[in-house]
Amino acid sequence: MWLVGARGAISTCLLYGLHGLRQGLLEPVGLVTESEPFRDLSMVPLENLVLGGHDVCDRDVSSAAGELVRAGILDVDLVTSGAAEAAAYEARLRPGPLDGPDVGVADLDARSSELGARPPRDQIAALNGDWDAFEKDNGIERTVVVFVASTEAVREPQEEWADLASFEAALDRGDPQPASVIYAYAALSSGRPLVNFTPSLASSVPALRQLAEERGVPHCGADGKTGETLVKTVLAPMFAARGLKVHAWQGYNMLGNRDGEVLRDPNHAAAKIQHKDDVLRGILGPNSNHHSKVGIDYVPSLGDWKTAMDFIHFEGFLGACMSLQFTWAGCDSALAAPLVLDLVRLAHLSAERGEGGVMDHTACFFKAPLAGGSHDFHEQHARLLAYVASCQR
Amino acid sequence: MWLVGARGAISTCLLYGLHGLRQGLLEPVGLVTESEPFRDLSMVPLENLVLGGHDVCDRDVSSAAGELVRAGILDVDLVTSGAAEAAAYEARLRPGPLDGPDVGVADLDARSSELGARPPRDQIAALNGDWDAFEKDNGIERTVVVFVASTEAVREPQEEWADLASFEAALDRGDPQPASVIYAYAALSSGRPLVNFTPSLASSVPALRQLAEERGVPHCGADGKTGETLVKTVLAPMFAARGLKVHAWQGYNMLGNRDGEVLRDPNHAAAKIQHKDDVLRGILGPNSNHHSKVGIDYVPSLGDWKTAMDFIHFEGFLGACMSLQFTWAGCDSALAAPLVLDLVRLAHLSAERGEGGVMDHTACFFKAPLAGGSHDFHEQHARLLAYVASCQR
Amino acid sequence: MWLVGARGAISTCLLYGLHGLRQGLLEPVGLVTESEPFRDLSMVPLENLVLGGHDVCDRDVSSAAGELVRAGILDVDLVTSGAAEAAAYEARLRPGPLDGPDVGVADLDARSSELGARPPRDQIAALNGDWDAFEKDNGIERTVVVFVASTEAVREPQEEWADLASFEAALDRGDPQPASVIYAYAALSSGRPLVNFTPSLASSVPALRQLAEERGVPHCGADGKTGETLVKTVLAPMFAARGLKVHAWQGYNMLGNRDGEVLRDPNHAAAKIQHKDDVLRGILGPNSNHHSKVGIDYVPSLGDWKTAMDFIHFEGFLGACMSLQFTWAGCDSALAAPLVLDLVRLAHLSAERGEGGVMDHTACFFKAPLAGGSHDFHEQHARLLAYVASCQR
Amino acid sequence: MWLVGARGAISTCLLYGLHGLRQGLLEPVGLVTESEPFRDLSMVPLENLVLGGHDVCDRDVSSAAGELVRAGILDVDLVTSGAAEAAAYEARLRPGPLDGPDVGVADLDARSSELGARPPRDQIAALNGDWDAFEKDNGIERTVVVFVASTEAVREPQEEWADLASFEAALDRGDPQPASVIYAYAALSSGRPLVNFTPSLASSVPALRQLAEERGVPHCGADGKTGETLVKTVLAPMFAARGLKVHAWQGYNMLGNRDGEVLRDPNHAAAKIQHKDDVLRGILGPNSNHHSKVGIDYVPSLGDWKTAMDFIHFEGFLGACMSLQFTWAGCDSALAAPLVLDLVRLAHLSAERGEGGVMDHTACFFKAPLAGGSHDFHEQHARLLAYVASCQR
Repeated sequence: MWLVGARGAISTCLLYGLHGLRQGLLEPVGLVTESEPFRDLSMVPLENLVLGGHDVCDRDVSSAAGELVRAGILDVDLVTSGAAEAAAYEARLRPGPLDGPDVGVADLDARSSELGARPPRDQIAALNGDWDAFEKDNGIERTVVVFVASTEAVREPQEEWADLASFEAALDRGDPQPASVIYAYAALSSGRPLVNFTPSLASSVPALRQLAEERGVPHCGADGKTGETLVKTVLAPMFAARGLKVHAWQGYNMLGNRDGEVLRDPNHAAAKIQHKDDVLRGILGPNSNHHSKVGIDYVPSLGDWKTAMDFIHFEGFLGACMSLQFTWAGCDSALAAPLVLDLVRLAHLSAERGEGGVMDHTACFFKAPLAGGSHDFHEQHARLLAYVASCQR
Repeated sequence: MWLVGARGAISTCLLYGLHGLRQGLLEPVGLVTESEPFRDLSMVPLENLVLGGHDVCDRDVSSAAGELVRAGILDVDLVTSGAAEAAAYEARLRPGPLDGPDVGVADLDARSSELGARPPRDQIAALNGDWDAFEKDNGIERTVVVFVASTEAVREPQEEWADLASFEAALDRGDPQPASVIYAYAALSSGRPLVNFTPSLASSVPALRQLAEERGVPHCGADGKTGETLVKTVLAPMFAARGLKVHAWQGYNMLGNRDGEVLRDPNHAAAKIQHKDDVLRGILGPNSNHHSKVGIDYVPSLGDWKTAMDFIHFEGFLGACMSLQFTWAGCDSALAAPLVLDLVRLAHLSAERGEGGVMDHTACFFKAPLAGGSHDFHEQHARLLAYVASCQR
Repeated sequence: MWLVGARGAISTCLLYGLHGLRQGLLEPVGLVTESEPFRDLSMVPLENLVLGGHDVCDRDVSSAAGELVRAGILDVDLVTSGAAEAAAYEARLRPGPLDGPDVGVADLDARSSELGARPPRDQIAALNGDWDAFEKDNGIERTVVVFVASTEAVREPQEEWADLASFEAALDRGDPQPASVIYAYAALSSGRPLVNFTPSLASSVPALRQLAEERGVPHCGADGKTGETLVKTVLAPMFAARGLKVHAWQGYNMLGNRDGEVLRDPNHAAAKIQHKDDVLRGILGPNSNHHSKVGIDYVPSLGDWKTAMDFIHFEGFLGACMSLQFTWAGCDSALAAPLVLDLVRLAHLSAERGEGGVMDHTACFFKAPLAGGSHDFHEQHARLLAYVASCQR
Repeated sequence: MWLVGARGAISTCLLYGLHGLRQGLLEPVGLVTESEPFRDLSMVPLENLVLGGHDVCDRDVSSAAGELVRAGILDVDLVTSGAAEAAAYEARLRPGPLDGPDVGVADLDARSSELGARPPRDQIAALNGDWDAFEKDNGIERTVVVFVASTEAVREPQEEWADLASFEAALDRGDPQPASVIYAYAALSSGRPLVNFTPSLASSVPALRQLAEERGVPHCGADGKTGETLVKTVLAPMFAARGLKVHAWQGYNMLGNRDGEVLRDPNHAAAKIQHKDDVLRGILGPNSNHHSKVGIDYVPSLGDWKTAMDFIHFEGFLGACMSLQFTWAGCDSALAAPLVLDLVRLAHLSAERGEGGVMDHTACFFKAPLAGGSHDFHEQHARLLAYVASCQR
């Protein structure tokens, strides 16, 4: 399991959480693959997972752990107990290429800036070198690459992304590419499954979808569905099923972690807001004519505690206008980490089963699933259960 | 369409709403059977429906309409336009038998008190007489009986309800029965489909389920799922699907209509609270060990505007405790009326198709479905869509 | 009582509300000057008030009334009963000068566009002409001018506003001025008290404050405190009094009326957002270092129903972080109209008592009081009560 | 400072919080007496305070601290740093008399049960013995007794409480008395100031008020105003000041600590609910005719995190009905502890200044102030500021 964004909050929660699960210090709450009917599949056991990763900043994992302890998310005893495991993890981390528009951000590892400035083919070779060494050093059979880095600056669609041949040519010419696309190409072209838990492009561009198909490598994404959007895609189908007319759906998101800080820049927020808003249109239908708004505000004091307040104005029989309002107060990393673990195990399973291309049964995990049809959470979940059933046959 | 509780808010909304739909003054918002894929079924057209009903009180339907106008639910122009139809409806109403424990309540029609005091067989004969006359007078082929009266006082289970023979014997002995059970027996034994939209017993007792099976009469209930419980059964499956552990679900309901006034009496509220609470246990599973509370408070100033505030405390990965809270502000009658219309049309369709017994495909309409397995709204709705598909084959 | 914005929702509520109060059809709910201890002051009786006004659009007052009936704010019987009064009011309305940046907006009265394009001195003369005629025609002794028009586009501070002499010179030169400033000059220079219930400049510029002082004319403003800001200035002092540290105060306002439509333009919203945000800093102190946000979103389906959701994140003893969140759902015009009535009576009283300049005892009515020191609602209200006591001595 | 309820959450927060303040590990957030203008009074310095106390249970203070760490209220480093101070505190604790109705509760110190069964005069002598020893051992000049034990079972008013002579006679006869009354008598009769932070009777009965007057000993209470009631007494005056008519105020409180467990028993909850409800009637006036409800539910998973959801339904001008709803999520002990510290310092100051009887300037700290006139928080706070000003003269 190779984490891109290895020093971030999600990775830190994964590291200590996995330790806690293995030591029996934690119950597998929030972990879908440890519940029925998933438990009956022949998934990779939690004991067998080895964690490594790339990052572009140089702060210590233990400093991220300290922040999560202060925020009341990680238990201090768990962090103490996992100290040796954290040190071993730290030793397995490597600097990753910095995305172009992020040049100059604080706390950077100089090697990341340097690597990010080199031609794409060189970056790809460096990533593959890191992964080969990780596998050799740790006796690993299969690496699943997971993208959990901060949201990238948004990019205009490029012609060279339209098909694989054009993309290869662009790489040959040395045209700069978004870091997430570099990672995705490096993983898929070397036969390593990819999970993109962020709104960044990664394997969503047509050229890389084609690559995954041709090489028969499973991949999935994009943008983990952990909070407000999860509730939205659970509630919106109710209005549709009851014939109630949604007039307005206002969603106000507040968050205070590094993700929030990055999203203050409209360039970085654009993709996320788009994903959060598209789901409604997908569920309520193209003719729904509702008014909607998705706001994301950086509120530093909240830290990793994401709070969303949504207001839904709808019409029922006789023209009566009514409202539903909800407030979701969740811990972002603690919600994301177990889903990442689930997706890694599902990607591993797909690879073992010889399935290539988009893992469309994972749509329920994402705000902007690469495939899977519906944004309706319950439809998506039914599809996941159907996949599980098909594996058991 | 025969409404038991014909002078109440739901019936009043139905009367004027149906008028508005027929005249093109209203859009069919909130009406499931007018949307896809239901529109393709050969349902009874709205134009062909005739409304009659029983009630135990003697206030005028137009006074109920006045209250709904003042509450901002019915449009004054719609009420003016439907005056002639309301007068015709008023002329078709008949006094129904008063339920024993309600003797002495205000505004009663003396004939209802008198009828309720007579032996059950006499009451049944009176009901059948009213329905025969209604059908004859209006050239009606099939009457669907709908129970929308105020919630009855709760009863201890009786041995005589265990099977049809014992029940018939009890009727022969003249043992008093709850009014809803009298209505249900009268309807089912005369081949008339029954919809029970309230928490009262009606056709839920084993003896009457057996009667419906034997006579091949469709029936459904109980307790329309219109507000807080609807949202609950939409949200709770999300926690289960994500492996999140619900610690507490507190639901505080406030309402100010006649229903709320009746529910102030714990005897009347018991069944409703039980239904609202059972759904959670049904969805989260018997081992969920969560703490839950359902409160219903009478807040007169709210009138027909039902407001519910729910607080859900749950645990995710790493033991992190989070919360979701929602406030639902809905107009009770405007939410219920179109569902009643849908159920009448579905019951009519079942009768036309020769289906008898519990209409298990209608589970999504009820807090305490007589059959249908799950309380999960989306599973229930999928079942309804499967039924529609089976009709189209 | 001369209403600038005479065809808007506030004016319409005032017209029918005053009719209802006089006829005993309404209780004086929300009207401060009809409660103790105000009732003992010698205020102008409601019976003696005559309404006239200016507007720039040409739609009928009765169409505004229709919208308010449909929104459940005005009672249909009240509108019917007040028809004659409404017609008389309509006959007393005159076209006012259009503010420069609003040229080209829909529904405009052509005479307003024309008047707004003329030199300021001409506009002032026209306004005075209208007021003189109004007073003569109706036998009125004293006119209070009330500014309740839509929020004006924000303006850069002008040097000519710094003192009265410069301003007079600018008028002489024919330099264009914001419409609210024209109205304020016309009123104050002709000895007519002015109430500015909007965020527009009006009498807030130094030159006009000086004018009011010199002529001894009472005036007050700006920006009526009716909803979210009212609650904010009631709650914020609690945090200060308890030594609790406010980390963040996020306020999300949704509204759907004409005001909301106008505020969609950032130019028009700027002043209002500034006023709503300043109050916090005023109460929590310059060192509070809290994070705050005021959002205003146009949600058409809400109509005149203004909904605000605020989230307050604060720290207590031991570094424990806690939260308070509130949702305010109020009817904008019904909240504003009685305050306007109160302010007109208070302005009239001040004029009778020979008080000139800013009415600093009215600070509790405004988001951005022209004077009065504190934004703390309870301090402001205590000041109003002290004024009343001083009048009774 | 002598804490009755010395092993509870408030006392534990006080112990470690005071340590943190003295060591400069904590800022004095939430502590009124450390802010302006209180800082200028000659109050007892935090450094000079010594803590001791009574309790009826025998669990260790460090186990209470562990719970508060797990709940995210106490910082683990603070607890480690305060270990020596906690051990010294533990050594100063003494068993207090158990209140009659609580016989048989879990975790009891056998000595408390025994002491509670003895005649009142013996209990009083034992308390005085403990206090004398505490003062002698620690070289203390003045002890302020603070009542922060769990809420007592409610009692019918007794004739013997009507005046001091009757009460002394009852003590002589050996008539059993509520534990809080025993403590209050013991404190006041020995010249020790008393702070009652709970809803229990303590010094509120007339006989003990008389005792405090006669001996010139300051005392205050009852029932600390820390959460929902604080917000209520801040918001309710706004409706009164604006002439808005409150129709309903529904307050739903959820809490999971020992206090919540005790309040599950209606006998224990009665006084608290009465206090929470009385404040509204006090502010809105006897004619307000509003509907109100105060619910308290025990939700174990919340622990010390108290969550309250209030819904206020009110009417404005034109009969328009609107709503305000708020959710308060606060940490009960962290809110209470600094107020207790403030009250101890204020009681000490009063004693130093020779003031006896009820400290009516402390009304803003209590849900049911023994004196002070108004429940309006801002009026109460203004009174406290006036007292401070009078001390400075």
